Amino acid sequence: MNVNQLIRAHLRKFAEYIPGEQPIENDWIKLNANENPYPPLPEIINDIKKKTNERLRLYPDPLAKELKTKIINKLLKKHNPPQSIDSYFVGNGTDEVLEVIYKVFIDIGDDIIYLDPSYGMYKTLSDLFGANSIEIKLNKDFSLPESLFEAKGKLLIICSPNNPTAKSFDNHLISKICETFPGIVIVDETYSDFTNKTSIPLLNRTKNLIITRTFSKSFSLASLRVGFAISNPDIIKVMNQVKLPYNLNYLSQVAAISCIDNMEKIFERNKIIISEREKITEILNNYENVEVIPSDANFILVRLKNKSQAMYIFNEMKKNKILIRYFPKPSLENYLRISIGTEEENKQLLKVFNDIANNFL
Amino acid sequence: MNVNQLIRAHLRKFAEYIPGEQPIENDWIKLNANENPYPPLPEIINDIKKKTNERLRLYPDPLAKELKTKIINKLLKKHNPPQSIDSYFVGNGTDEVLEVIYKVFIDIGDDIIYLDPSYGMYKTLSDLFGANSIEIKLNKDFSLPESLFEAKGKLLIICSPNNPTAKSFDNHLISKICETFPGIVIVDETYSDFTNKTSIPLLNRTKNLIITRTFSKSFSLASLRVGFAISNPDIIKVMNQVKLPYNLNYLSQVAAISCIDNMEKIFERNKIIISEREKITEILNNYENVEVIPSDANFILVRLKNKSQAMYIFNEMKKNKILIRYFPKPSLENYLRISIGTEEENKQLLKVFNDIANNFL
Repeated sequence: MNVNQLIRAHLRKFAEYIPGEQPIENDWIKLNANENPYPPLPEIINDIKKKTNERLRLYPDPLAKELKTKIINKLLKKHNPPQSIDSYFVGNGTDEVLEVIYKVFIDIGDDIIYLDPSYGMYKTLSDLFGANSIEIKLNKDFSLPESLFEAKGKLLIICSPNNPTAKSFDNHLISKICETFPGIVIVDETYSDFTNKTSIPLLNRTKNLIITRTFSKSFSLASLRVGFAISNPDIIKVMNQVKLPYNLNYLSQVAAISCIDNMEKIFERNKIIISEREKITEILNNYENVEVIPSDANFILVRLKNKSQAMYIFNEMKKNKILIRYFPKPSLENYLRISIGTEEENKQLLKVFNDIANNFL
Repeated sequence: MNVNQLIRAHLRKFAEYIPGEQPIENDWIKLNANENPYPPLPEIINDIKKKTNERLRLYPDPLAKELKTKIINKLLKKHNPPQSIDSYFVGNGTDEVLEVIYKVFIDIGDDIIYLDPSYGMYKTLSDLFGANSIEIKLNKDFSLPESLFEAKGKLLIICSPNNPTAKSFDNHLISKICETFPGIVIVDETYSDFTNKTSIPLLNRTKNLIITRTFSKSFSLASLRVGFAISNPDIIKVMNQVKLPYNLNYLSQVAAISCIDNMEKIFERNKIIISEREKITEILNNYENVEVIPSDANFILVRLKNKSQAMYIFNEMKKNKILIRYFPKPSLENYLRISIGTEEENKQLLKVFNDIANNFL
């Protein structure tokens, strides 16, 4: 028997998603995966420990009702979000939330529209589902191109703030896309807690919009995989039907609830990340041939003179035990993405950058 | 826009999996979901608490290498399992492990063979993937029918010990199925730690066999969702490619590793479940028109005289705050599935059963 012949035809040459490197030793400065540089608050660590008890033997709540209720009544309250838990879907990270959306809507050959550059997982999932990917290039300044308003397809995905360009898109544009696009529009708000912009207010007047959010970035919970979606209950209903019954484990539900209970403190601490972002942006912009794209997220995208300079800096940083991200694709060949670290880590990053710049740029 | 018209055609009337009831109050005797009646050992609780630390801010190991190494070198050692971690896949519960297998092999319309009665998730997943389900009826005594050796299709799924009939199937039969079936054979060993039988030795000489296992039952870890698969590295490679990058969260990896570190104590404690199973079987078999199918698992299937008796007992148990499982399908209409509880819970179950039997059967 040739096992390979049994594999689905479109998966035989499938290229999987390559995550950012995760070194085992602790002495690296890790600015390559947009993780929050600060650990979860002690209050959250304690809440998880308190709930690590005999309840572990039982299956988790399949619909995470307590978590959803808290998302409505506290986390998103100021944005006036949909009030029924039937408008919310919770999953094992935004990755699973996105995959469940694909599961509901995408047959082999369906058209999926996303931007270039944007988060690599959109293409990975499209290939996985055998969809027809239509990449629409952002304008030179990474704003949305006019052609987006004429796009046709089953799904259209916008990341806002966009990874890796770090810019948010305005609601009047997203609203116009929801009106003109004949399919489902996803706005991935993974990084939206680092800015004031959100498309949540649009949910009240659009039927085809899904907003996704995560606890991985602003809440320092990447290890525990909690993402969620907000949309029209007709869409959420099918998403809940097609998800695996127990997709989100118990301790992740506990941790996310505790994050919301402690959100004021967390958002206060995240202000350090935002002010560090502004500081680094200003300093790097002083170097010749270096330009930082204004950021709404917990990372910055840095434009270098050319590809060889970008790769050179990436490698020199690595020699100094600093991991940043280089994306080997044409639209990003002269760019580097750098996550904002702690004040100490950022100091070190700037020092090494300065050494490189003085000697070689 | 009509959102429903955008949903994939085969999902518009999709019937999702209905999990066993999970009451919120603690005063129920819960024998409906085959959860382990004993909590994780204090050693495991402590290990999870110890690792609940600042590491939580980082993404988990995408390939769970430490856990896989421990599965090979300790958990399965006595079964002489495949020695390379390239033969292992780890997922968010057996549900995700099965879904990833479907993702690799199943296109709309493909034939999937499973047994009737067996675990309901096989049909749910088949419907989800738009497959053509072929249910093969077990013999009257719940043994494998001869027709299985002539089955054709993409996937064939055997649960051993089978849920809900509680019986294991012999390796010479499973081996013969692997030889005669032209597709992939899955043996779901969710309950195999409660017996001595396993198909792991067959892996050395079959290319098309996938064995799945879980930490939910024998290791009391249902809340944390850890399942795994062992197979031919050609199959595991594609499974790892198509899974979501960070499918298994960090604390679940920690918990499963600790379970393996403490497996001797756990298996010792599980002997109580096995001896309770034998005791309950003997006692119930003394009632007229009641027959317990010999069990290799942590639950028993009980045959009653007819459908109305089965439903009557189910409802009376519920009035007494004891949850057991009734499956509303023809092949199981006069049966009840009862998970083995603690000694105290089992005593209460038998007392209520006796009251019902004396008054109404």
